[in-house]
Amino acid sequence: MKLVVLGAAGRMGRTLVKVIAETEGASLAAAIEREGSPALQSDAGMLAGIGENGVVVGSDIDAALEGADGIIDFTAPAVSVDIAKRAAERRLVHVIGTTGFEVGADAAIGAAAEAGATIVKSGNMSLGVNLLAVLVEQAARALGPDAFDIEVLEMHHKHKVDAPSGTALLLGEAAAKGRDVALADHSVKVRDGITGPREAGTIGFATLRGGSVVGEHSVILAGEGERIELSHAAGDRSIFARGAIKAALWAKGKPAGLYSMRDVLGLSG
Amino acid sequence: MKLVVLGAAGRMGRTLVKVIAETEGASLAAAIEREGSPALQSDAGMLAGIGENGVVVGSDIDAALEGADGIIDFTAPAVSVDIAKRAAERRLVHVIGTTGFEVGADAAIGAAAEAGATIVKSGNMSLGVNLLAVLVEQAARALGPDAFDIEVLEMHHKHKVDAPSGTALLLGEAAAKGRDVALADHSVKVRDGITGPREAGTIGFATLRGGSVVGEHSVILAGEGERIELSHAAGDRSIFARGAIKAALWAKGKPAGLYSMRDVLGLSG
Amino acid sequence: MKLVVLGAAGRMGRTLVKVIAETEGASLAAAIEREGSPALQSDAGMLAGIGENGVVVGSDIDAALEGADGIIDFTAPAVSVDIAKRAAERRLVHVIGTTGFEVGADAAIGAAAEAGATIVKSGNMSLGVNLLAVLVEQAARALGPDAFDIEVLEMHHKHKVDAPSGTALLLGEAAAKGRDVALADHSVKVRDGITGPREAGTIGFATLRGGSVVGEHSVILAGEGERIELSHAAGDRSIFARGAIKAALWAKGKPAGLYSMRDVLGLSG
Amino acid sequence: MKLVVLGAAGRMGRTLVKVIAETEGASLAAAIEREGSPALQSDAGMLAGIGENGVVVGSDIDAALEGADGIIDFTAPAVSVDIAKRAAERRLVHVIGTTGFEVGADAAIGAAAEAGATIVKSGNMSLGVNLLAVLVEQAARALGPDAFDIEVLEMHHKHKVDAPSGTALLLGEAAAKGRDVALADHSVKVRDGITGPREAGTIGFATLRGGSVVGEHSVILAGEGERIELSHAAGDRSIFARGAIKAALWAKGKPAGLYSMRDVLGLSG
Repeated sequence: MKLVVLGAAGRMGRTLVKVIAETEGASLAAAIEREGSPALQSDAGMLAGIGENGVVVGSDIDAALEGADGIIDFTAPAVSVDIAKRAAERRLVHVIGTTGFEVGADAAIGAAAEAGATIVKSGNMSLGVNLLAVLVEQAARALGPDAFDIEVLEMHHKHKVDAPSGTALLLGEAAAKGRDVALADHSVKVRDGITGPREAGTIGFATLRGGSVVGEHSVILAGEGERIELSHAAGDRSIFARGAIKAALWAKGKPAGLYSMRDVLGLSG
Repeated sequence: MKLVVLGAAGRMGRTLVKVIAETEGASLAAAIEREGSPALQSDAGMLAGIGENGVVVGSDIDAALEGADGIIDFTAPAVSVDIAKRAAERRLVHVIGTTGFEVGADAAIGAAAEAGATIVKSGNMSLGVNLLAVLVEQAARALGPDAFDIEVLEMHHKHKVDAPSGTALLLGEAAAKGRDVALADHSVKVRDGITGPREAGTIGFATLRGGSVVGEHSVILAGEGERIELSHAAGDRSIFARGAIKAALWAKGKPAGLYSMRDVLGLSG
Repeated sequence: MKLVVLGAAGRMGRTLVKVIAETEGASLAAAIEREGSPALQSDAGMLAGIGENGVVVGSDIDAALEGADGIIDFTAPAVSVDIAKRAAERRLVHVIGTTGFEVGADAAIGAAAEAGATIVKSGNMSLGVNLLAVLVEQAARALGPDAFDIEVLEMHHKHKVDAPSGTALLLGEAAAKGRDVALADHSVKVRDGITGPREAGTIGFATLRGGSVVGEHSVILAGEGERIELSHAAGDRSIFARGAIKAALWAKGKPAGLYSMRDVLGLSG
Repeated sequence: MKLVVLGAAGRMGRTLVKVIAETEGASLAAAIEREGSPALQSDAGMLAGIGENGVVVGSDIDAALEGADGIIDFTAPAVSVDIAKRAAERRLVHVIGTTGFEVGADAAIGAAAEAGATIVKSGNMSLGVNLLAVLVEQAARALGPDAFDIEVLEMHHKHKVDAPSGTALLLGEAAAKGRDVALADHSVKVRDGITGPREAGTIGFATLRGGSVVGEHSVILAGEGERIELSHAAGDRSIFARGAIKAALWAKGKPAGLYSMRDVLGLSG
């Protein structure tokens, strides 16, 4: 599958170039940067630290899409909307890892999917985290709030400036959805001093910070005499690139439409 | 729900009597032991260590079933087959935690379910382990053998005489089913010395033994740069009683038929 | 050694009654509950599930202390301070497993020890936790605050009313001691929202609550590219009862003063 | 501290160049490769992927040692013995991470330490693993074999060809030393089928393989009702470079002699 990488000189773009080179069935068709980027005319492989691969970074998207099968895009909402339209015209696969979409942009992406693009869009492209969210939702549905307490634990490196992590909240949302409640009404994020006994039905969050930990998340369902723990550990940031490329390979040959990582994992429905 | 406990003076029976007393919506209708048991005429609550409850242990099953809603049965295959027939006649719920059924006995249980009994039968009544098996199967299906390696780790107390545990094998079977392979052809149970690199598609087992650990199981799915871990820890053996009582409450009012713990968990789709 | 058990009808009290009955050299002198408790006038042995032992639960502490050698006390700070004063007057052994003391209550305990009580006080009475504290202190000393971040994680059952646990604080104190700093000046107990990056030298606490978890504690030392984790898991509460009774037997005949489990175990110094 | 890196173009050498650049108090004095290496005359910073640093890779060791404070050496036993003699003549710090020494070479290293070199030598330069070994030895000594069972668990990436890992065996040796027994007489490396109950005093090993896991080790001490777990997780291979540079900084100004990582950690008491 011939893939075009957008933002090819950025951190994610370089990781994408590297992982495509390692992935059977995928090849790099073109590497795109914005006009004026100092990386234009550089070899994309050299930028990615994998040695010269003969793909020169350019800025002409239409030329790049000629003969390509799909586009991988971790850029900005306005760029992603524009690319989705071009993907629709050419009936291409468009994998969107971009975040921060407003309602209008979301609608434009949906329109492009109806007009012919095969789009996979997710705020988190990691296979493992998306799978974990599905499993958490099911576990929370199966083990009711009277008998099982849900806790979300996360650990990240010492540089992280917010807590809990976005992924911890995403997992908390999955648990809340499994219980048909709103997370906002049930989350407990602080325990310090005299807290009283744990309130049934709440979803607790606990945060660890230290060292260079890339990202670890656990969802615990604790009942009388037994405990289930569902965890994910990220070892490096390439997992987002890997997930996006897996999404592209999955989407090839699928009908036009808007898909999520759950579809890629075969766990929707 | 009025429940009859069979084998009420045994270890599991006494735990059932105790947990029924703690469970909202459940009450002890009768406590049965075999004829000749020294426990006959004792108070079932006293035997269970929860104080007198006024239910005297008896041996007349038909009298016990009069007015009862269900039966909880961790006995022996021949007893369970006999009870299933009586449950069918009276259209009762029959929860069977008995193990060691031969093919013929299994068929007789099925026939009773067709004839009017609402039967929930499982070799492992723990909610958590049954849920974990469902999640493992899904995870193994979603994360293919080329990209993710599956390992099953278990720890039990120092008295356990076999390895891996039956539950570890059950979880390995769930993983194999998720990958549409036979566990026997893919399991690796020994690693010692020069093993060579891990073979893709295998399912590894590792065993820890020590102290008084009741039972802990983890299924690890390890890929490039990320890892999923799905775990269960048992704190005490009452979880099997709890699961059986939850199964009984779930089954009340359901049509006659043969159900599993997956049905109770709402995960059989 | 004749021991008075406080809170004798509670979970810990019943375990104490049971373990005292199993321990050579120890006997139950009296079993105390608060006035108004429905357990008053019950047989303490029956409550503990070990059969009638002839010790009737009462609420008159002064009568109970008459002729006793020591008190075992897992209650509440205000009660423990009151009992410590009575122990000082009578020059008794007072083993305190109560947690959640404020500064003033701590000082009152110290004053009682100076006034004649032989007090052993610890946030955790188990051998394993006290060993862990020694190891944590060493690790914190060896791995300096510029390179390694220390976090303390604990999980307890849903009924626990305070956070972090006394044992978590005890482990945090051990870490602070290893670094020659005061825990109070360096602890971080809440992370929620925009926290900024982790401050070097701080000791973080995170709390999980759920199910019937007896008590689990981990101290994490996280550096660049590596992490040490030192953990303790309690499987049942009898380890605290065993430790408390061992402490009482050790303290008999020792001079009045305030002792710790490290003293009892010969791990101080 | 001015440091000479040997084998500067190899994987460990390049990591050392990179970590020295990040370490306050350390600077790269020279980068050495064997004669005939294609890397001679290259810029050491470029090789390390940190940009030009002006240190050209050379092969003249004596010139390199002129004005240097110490040498970091992950090479081969014959090279390390030769370098140790030169370090003795010049009274330099020599950090040796080389493995595979025979008895004679070990003696030669010792002689160089007596003759004036300040040598830190270890088969594993990770701070965390060395600390863990010290803690494991203490824990094994404190918690005797009648009451506590010791298990060593390790996980590594799918490419690893042997089991258990060298570090798992090192931790097993530390446990055996704490109990004053020989590991070879007490280790259990295989459990499959009917094993019988765990034999008191044995040290069990369990091995997990999968994905890209750099290296994780846990030593579990499991007793009746409680468990201690002492673990190390490596996130990337730079920890060996970090440990070696920390050893060099620690050794600066120390008297000539042969030291271990335990000395660096201040835990050799």
